[in-house]
Amino acid sequence: MTVSRGRRPGAPDTRAEVLAAARTSFAEKGFRGTTIRAIASAAGVDPALVHHYFGTKDDLFVAALQIPVDPREVLAPVVAAGPDGAGERLLRTLLSVWDDPELQPGLVALARSLVSDDSASLVRDGFIPVVVGPVLASLVPDRPEVRVPLVASQIIGLIVTRYVVALPPLALMPSEDVVARVGPTLQRYLTGDLP
Amino acid sequence: MTVSRGRRPGAPDTRAEVLAAARTSFAEKGFRGTTIRAIASAAGVDPALVHHYFGTKDDLFVAALQIPVDPREVLAPVVAAGPDGAGERLLRTLLSVWDDPELQPGLVALARSLVSDDSASLVRDGFIPVVVGPVLASLVPDRPEVRVPLVASQIIGLIVTRYVVALPPLALMPSEDVVARVGPTLQRYLTGDLP
Repeated sequence: MTVSRGRRPGAPDTRAEVLAAARTSFAEKGFRGTTIRAIASAAGVDPALVHHYFGTKDDLFVAALQIPVDPREVLAPVVAAGPDGAGERLLRTLLSVWDDPELQPGLVALARSLVSDDSASLVRDGFIPVVVGPVLASLVPDRPEVRVPLVASQIIGLIVTRYVVALPPLALMPSEDVVARVGPTLQRYLTGDLP
Repeated sequence: MTVSRGRRPGAPDTRAEVLAAARTSFAEKGFRGTTIRAIASAAGVDPALVHHYFGTKDDLFVAALQIPVDPREVLAPVVAAGPDGAGERLLRTLLSVWDDPELQPGLVALARSLVSDDSASLVRDGFIPVVVGPVLASLVPDRPEVRVPLVASQIIGLIVTRYVVALPPLALMPSEDVVARVGPTLQRYLTGDLP
């Protein structure tokens, strides 16, 4: 009986090496400066294998961020229900993920690192324009390039204030109170009259 | 002629030592865990000298943050003009400080450090409740403990998005456009009907 000791293309450590190469490249060269080809080369595999494991460059980026949930999947039902009330639904969905005690520590660590020097470009060039921007854009009547960043500004501020800084009483405010108080802001940025 | 080589109480390096001791204490023990007496002891001076140099504990905290401007002074005219239009005035004032090319690098570095693990308590226990909270509270008709953190959430989010992450087009949006688009959010948090 022979047991192969070589690594097969589908072996788990190959996948991990591709992911590590992707994280390094996204961190050093940003989203736009990263190519599947360069990641494949750094990991010593064929680009086709990278696509096989991770799908598109966007998918690989989401995987490299190591977010415990894929925001595109989480946001899909919010968007599917249309623009009416989307501000409150978006917020309720966001809070349900961030308030989850199993997810929160990892998300807070991620938020901290994304504000640091090295990773701000991942938010600027990748996370917002590539991952969440296109999803939210389908909710807005016009000028997504203005509306989506305004939505991002309130959501990021809420995350920093409630979860990273943990400012009382926002940190402990019942999520439905947050939805009722901040939801109208998101709704106005999404669909309201904006100068 | 004799020249004193000893340090006099008013010597610049004594002031710097007090400030260094204050920064260490605020960072390690937070705002509430820090006393003037402990700072004086760490710097090897009399507590009265700390008060002489820096005024109250609040004043010393602002000095220790090394913010290029004192937010209480900057916000005074915003507050003096009353609640009507305060959202837009607050934002215009904030943007004029943050858009200043001489101030911006230091402010961005400060914002980054305040989101880090070690310094979040300075925002939570000191900066918002002690420095800006009381100023803003004079603008609101009721429940400052709810309204001020909501204002903070949008302002912090705008700062992170426009200056730290530098998300386009928010990073380059003319300040009057930001004022017109985000001002109503702050006005509603300050004086609007909130559930």
